[in-house]
Amino acid sequence: MILINGEAGIAPSASDRGLQFGDGVFRTLRLFEGQPLWWADHYEKLTFDCRALAIEPPDGKQLLAEIHRLGAVSPDGVVKIIVTRGESGRGYRPEPDAAPTRILILGAPPAWPERFHSEGVRVRLCELRLAAQPRLAGVKHLNRLENVLARMEWDDPEFAEGILLDRAGRVVEGVMSNLFAVLAGRLVTPDLRRCGVAGVARERLLRAAAKRGTGVDVRDMDLQELLSAEALFLCNSLIGVWRVARLGERLWPETKHYRMLLSWLHEHEEMA
Amino acid sequence: MILINGEAGIAPSASDRGLQFGDGVFRTLRLFEGQPLWWADHYEKLTFDCRALAIEPPDGKQLLAEIHRLGAVSPDGVVKIIVTRGESGRGYRPEPDAAPTRILILGAPPAWPERFHSEGVRVRLCELRLAAQPRLAGVKHLNRLENVLARMEWDDPEFAEGILLDRAGRVVEGVMSNLFAVLAGRLVTPDLRRCGVAGVARERLLRAAAKRGTGVDVRDMDLQELLSAEALFLCNSLIGVWRVARLGERLWPETKHYRMLLSWLHEHEEMA
Repeated sequence: MILINGEAGIAPSASDRGLQFGDGVFRTLRLFEGQPLWWADHYEKLTFDCRALAIEPPDGKQLLAEIHRLGAVSPDGVVKIIVTRGESGRGYRPEPDAAPTRILILGAPPAWPERFHSEGVRVRLCELRLAAQPRLAGVKHLNRLENVLARMEWDDPEFAEGILLDRAGRVVEGVMSNLFAVLAGRLVTPDLRRCGVAGVARERLLRAAAKRGTGVDVRDMDLQELLSAEALFLCNSLIGVWRVARLGERLWPETKHYRMLLSWLHEHEEMA
Repeated sequence: MILINGEAGIAPSASDRGLQFGDGVFRTLRLFEGQPLWWADHYEKLTFDCRALAIEPPDGKQLLAEIHRLGAVSPDGVVKIIVTRGESGRGYRPEPDAAPTRILILGAPPAWPERFHSEGVRVRLCELRLAAQPRLAGVKHLNRLENVLARMEWDDPEFAEGILLDRAGRVVEGVMSNLFAVLAGRLVTPDLRRCGVAGVARERLLRAAAKRGTGVDVRDMDLQELLSAEALFLCNSLIGVWRVARLGERLWPETKHYRMLLSWLHEHEEMA
């Protein structure tokens, strides 16, 4: 089921700038009993990302009502929200009076093996290196060819995720997830001011750590440091948290941090 | 008029990866008496760009037949060709059996003022700096947010184009065009192995220069060198060649090079 500007049974325009230029942003969120999980965080991030591209964010109440329509169809599904700058001619210049397009796509619940949670995941290192573009860093925009090309590097389902470095060799994120490491007893997550997507799960963990006064070090980290970490985690809105059990020949046993991050992620789990 | 995989009157899928991730490439070409201008060059470039993303290129004869259908409707129009990796679920990983989507959009002829050709154009320097991503450099893919944001920097129609530098300060291209300079009597065009789009008009000029044994220096160039150029030109498939008459306070008179580049661009103007 797909809603375009609230309407079911219609399709996007071929002149939509989302298709022409990737000129828009998106969100992927889980439903639980028909309600979007972490809705306040997702809407805040959607609004932030729209503004980063000077796109007028959709009205929150209207958007939520549309999500509820999808939730009535599939209460435990996944909703992808795409907001584009709207339609225009072929040129890069937006039409001054174009109205944004909002597209909601209802999808099936995630289908990762249960053992990814119980045993941790094996990950690989991607060859593709992320480009640094501070103007777009952190934003979940529709220009995702780097992620696509990185994900195309492997077929083996044994690898749950790929780790992305930037062109200077700094660790940035997973292809579809954010990354946390434990280094000298401290939680560390890469600084995303040059590249990468700052996801809602990462934001929830940062907030939970800040509330406890422990905090997280947001800073650069190279591969060698990553491999020296006591523990490694991946997070996003669909997977929650995975602990990394293996990268190359490096193995990590489970530590106390996994349960801690899980509980942090799911605290104050407001429903809309 | 729009054709999607050869069919009129239908719309793209919201699950198309062109919309979801900008996972595809595009071309914009002029029609002349219903025939696509520089067709062999455009098809070669389309094929090259598809392969750079591991997308199966469309069949040339089929594509040309579809362009002719549009040309019968508007013999002097512009055709935009979008080729995406096809449809998939929400993940970055492509479906192994997805068929590419080809979208042809018929548009109006370009409507730039005639004086842009007779008097040259005024251009501005963009604040946005292009990111270096060798894996995507040169390819006219659908991840064009940098171009969109750069084009949004100005409204004044007095500026025909914006000049883009990369993050290291190297001159790369115009927002929608490639750039040639004359320096110490030599034609120079920026090296596009880090970023930028290597357009068909640029390729035609490089080929014409090579054929004459004069050649073009393809190399890095900073802003200071650009401003010291004897002459400056912008080219693409819709504008042909514009000479730059002004950038900031720097003015350039017309030189012999403008007519030369125009004639080079239009020689052997094969029709399909």
